[in-house]
Amino acid sequence: MASWRSVALKKKAEQEALIPKEWRLDPIPSSNDVSSIPETCGLLDANELEFTNSDIAVLLDKLAQGHWSSVSVTKAFSKRAIIAHQLTNCLTEIFIERALGRAAELDEYLKSTGNVRGPLHGLPVSLKDQINVEGLESCMGYISWIGQFAERNAVVADILEEAGAILFVKTNIPQTLMWPETFNHVFGRTSNPYNRSLTCGGSSGGEGTLVAMRGSPLGVGSDIGGSVRIPAAFCGTYGLRPSYGRAASTPSKVKIQYHPLAVRKRWSEDEYRLADHGEGKQLCFAILWDDGIITPHPPITRGLRMAKEALLRAASSFQVIDWKAHKHSEMYSTLSEIWASGAEEDYGTVAAPTGEPVIASMSLENQIALEGGFDHNSIPRSAYQLWQLHRKKRDLREEHLQVWEDTVKITGTGRPVDAIISPVAPYAAVGHGNNKSANYTAVWNLLDYTALVIPVAQVDSKLDSVNLPQLFHSHIDRRVSELLNAGNQHLVDNPEDFENAPISLQVIGRTLEEEAVIGMGEILDTALKVIKVETK
Amino acid sequence: MASWRSVALKKKAEQEALIPKEWRLDPIPSSNDVSSIPETCGLLDANELEFTNSDIAVLLDKLAQGHWSSVSVTKAFSKRAIIAHQLTNCLTEIFIERALGRAAELDEYLKSTGNVRGPLHGLPVSLKDQINVEGLESCMGYISWIGQFAERNAVVADILEEAGAILFVKTNIPQTLMWPETFNHVFGRTSNPYNRSLTCGGSSGGEGTLVAMRGSPLGVGSDIGGSVRIPAAFCGTYGLRPSYGRAASTPSKVKIQYHPLAVRKRWSEDEYRLADHGEGKQLCFAILWDDGIITPHPPITRGLRMAKEALLRAASSFQVIDWKAHKHSEMYSTLSEIWASGAEEDYGTVAAPTGEPVIASMSLENQIALEGGFDHNSIPRSAYQLWQLHRKKRDLREEHLQVWEDTVKITGTGRPVDAIISPVAPYAAVGHGNNKSANYTAVWNLLDYTALVIPVAQVDSKLDSVNLPQLFHSHIDRRVSELLNAGNQHLVDNPEDFENAPISLQVIGRTLEEEAVIGMGEILDTALKVIKVETK
Repeated sequence: MASWRSVALKKKAEQEALIPKEWRLDPIPSSNDVSSIPETCGLLDANELEFTNSDIAVLLDKLAQGHWSSVSVTKAFSKRAIIAHQLTNCLTEIFIERALGRAAELDEYLKSTGNVRGPLHGLPVSLKDQINVEGLESCMGYISWIGQFAERNAVVADILEEAGAILFVKTNIPQTLMWPETFNHVFGRTSNPYNRSLTCGGSSGGEGTLVAMRGSPLGVGSDIGGSVRIPAAFCGTYGLRPSYGRAASTPSKVKIQYHPLAVRKRWSEDEYRLADHGEGKQLCFAILWDDGIITPHPPITRGLRMAKEALLRAASSFQVIDWKAHKHSEMYSTLSEIWASGAEEDYGTVAAPTGEPVIASMSLENQIALEGGFDHNSIPRSAYQLWQLHRKKRDLREEHLQVWEDTVKITGTGRPVDAIISPVAPYAAVGHGNNKSANYTAVWNLLDYTALVIPVAQVDSKLDSVNLPQLFHSHIDRRVSELLNAGNQHLVDNPEDFENAPISLQVIGRTLEEEAVIGMGEILDTALKVIKVETK
Repeated sequence: MASWRSVALKKKAEQEALIPKEWRLDPIPSSNDVSSIPETCGLLDANELEFTNSDIAVLLDKLAQGHWSSVSVTKAFSKRAIIAHQLTNCLTEIFIERALGRAAELDEYLKSTGNVRGPLHGLPVSLKDQINVEGLESCMGYISWIGQFAERNAVVADILEEAGAILFVKTNIPQTLMWPETFNHVFGRTSNPYNRSLTCGGSSGGEGTLVAMRGSPLGVGSDIGGSVRIPAAFCGTYGLRPSYGRAASTPSKVKIQYHPLAVRKRWSEDEYRLADHGEGKQLCFAILWDDGIITPHPPITRGLRMAKEALLRAASSFQVIDWKAHKHSEMYSTLSEIWASGAEEDYGTVAAPTGEPVIASMSLENQIALEGGFDHNSIPRSAYQLWQLHRKKRDLREEHLQVWEDTVKITGTGRPVDAIISPVAPYAAVGHGNNKSANYTAVWNLLDYTALVIPVAQVDSKLDSVNLPQLFHSHIDRRVSELLNAGNQHLVDNPEDFENAPISLQVIGRTLEEEAVIGMGEILDTALKVIKVETK
């Protein structure tokens, strides 16, 4: 049997061979900030830049009108994705030939029938590595899964293709998926496009990076503890974590139940127009400034203040109050214990056949387990003990919902708080190996609340002066504070190293309240754009 | 510490003391069929008989109009419930005084405001024992839980009370809830009102019996493997098993999310009118005649034939085709393994403190474990192994949904089969201890499909001649066939002993398709009533 290293090297070489010679960067730039290189490298012509810089709404309109062909749009995004990949190592499977073939079919279909194939006609869409596409591997960075080719599409891939989307690349993830960074033994490490010495987050880190570099207009990930939201926040893109079962929700024209786990609930325009929130006239937002586990760094707090200011300026009827964290520590540890209850047996089962080691840290000095932080210490439990953890989780959910309901007494709107605004992480993107907590995202998973990530600003060392607190919640809180200090060899060297890293926030709504969360997210996003224009 | 037996006896004596002297049957009849005794015993006057024999729609209308007071209706149902209890032992907690107090408040409210309190204004509703009511016990037949008084209502109790319902009694269940019959060491055994030598089914057996005897117009149970449907079928009542999370679905005027596990989906009149089923014009039903595990007894097969005939007569556009069982054995064993994975630790944790034995059989010779059948053999597993079972369950669900989807090729309606019609059990009610399989109900739980039980007919030894098959699926199948044979001391003595036992069927729809299943169930129910009138 070949060693696991040689199997991984072979797979990586096969991937490398799929990069067309004419799309290669030569030399590959060595700068930390590579976010603008797709624009400046000269490989994309003016049309390709226009396509790839366009909003999805513009793309869909131009594609549907036949003004832009799907072949040319797909080719432009493919080229930009390949450029992004050479700079950040964001891709896993590359299947551009096949995508261009399908794009040509859709162009022909539109030409001959005058109709679009579906609401996403001709739009390239990227997928996180674990989403199966017929005939391709989904090795998820496990050596032992290399060479397993999917017999059929995942349901979400089917839905996208039936809606007219063009699947063209899959994107990188961490081994086990259970890290908020992106590194594995097959594809290696993905870096943050704004600063390659920083992590792009994870587990959907390849998606975050690719979409941030406009190598894809839309990507699909997964999020059981923050895996869509953390990369979205660290890379400055929008990202939605729907409630359990809502991922496959589809427009009303499409069959609503492709998968047994999909909730039979159509998109509701009423809910999007905030019918359950007084038609959006008198909204009361509540800001979570600190979850009591890790105090946010100054840039994040500035982002929260900007959101507050923007909303208060947006409408005199809007209120912004403080949200008091309720049992975040207990919620986070309960979810972590559920994950840990079968983790060792799970990882071991996958890694053992090839001898591939289970990764113990995301730091550059890979394999060194650092103390504290994101808990990968497996605590094997019995099925009965797992049931008790789920029971505890249910009790915490009941309790938190009651706390939220009880805010009806203080809002004055006749409703409880309409949405919570929260950090996504206690910091903007940090150095590789330093993102070891998912406390600001995982609690909303435990609660199964809908969460939307919105980019707010970028780190600015002039504005974000370092005010280390004098008191810490814990030694982990102190450690995170010290990420802003120079001199720790495992950490970034200077506060200035965060410069330009995106600052993002989450808008949190109730379970299965995707429509209203998007509606309120748009209100916040617009309000923020207004104050940015005003303060320029 | 008192022995567990003496603690149980004390609790039972307290219950006994709550039965008003003037509502006591003296002597208590010794006949097997006690279903008509509430009508004939003379304890209910003409008004009370009219109230308790009325449909819910009539009750709600008369209550809302103020023609009948909630006090008089609640008193009538309470009296009839107490009569039923003396005959079948169906109740656990009895709180009639409190119910009458609340009924008086509602009567006063209607009188003074002219308004009803909610859509269920003044209607008595019974609850399965485990549903908490503030200030009462929910000991669930466990000695060790006696004396634990609920600090607050369960969510479903709150929803019912806010809708104007009057909670008045709770009903009996089996120890552990994991039996399809009803017996425990605290409250004893509940019997079938049509033949007390037969089981009423379980686990919501007290509800099935009470509602069948019109001691309650409406009851709330729970069903993770058939626990609402089996008692409904054995006792001849209607019974709905909604999809997971839909239990708390409420009319649109009421807040839609009382509990974090409740699906945010309002009642849809469109779905009830079968908008997703071609407006109900050309329905294609499919009948599951035999699941390949246990062949149904002749009365059940007759019920299925009646359903087919009724539907074909109801509309010339309706089709009834055969449903081919797909992996029922694998589905049933997967669900059983999930239950068994932590059962021993679970039951032991509850029973150990008092020394109460865990019940090994529901037979009259209690504690004798019979071979085969409903599997209570605990197979403790790790959390990781449990995850693998859930993964297998998910795969089976995907596969079954695909099988269902694929029927679009044979229906000719442009849709897959609209609903499956299935037995609820392979027999009508059987002797105590003989109902050891839940195979016709549990598979739909694994699939999370919506299932509605509809009574069809009653066993008639002239029509239901015993045609024992020559080939059996298994030794369990043979054993069930032999329940129709005389001479086995653990079993009923003669085929005639099933006489008059209710025959019922299930209408099965997709996950979260409660509205359409009720809509199609009403079509079947009406069609069956038409042929019954015609063949009289």
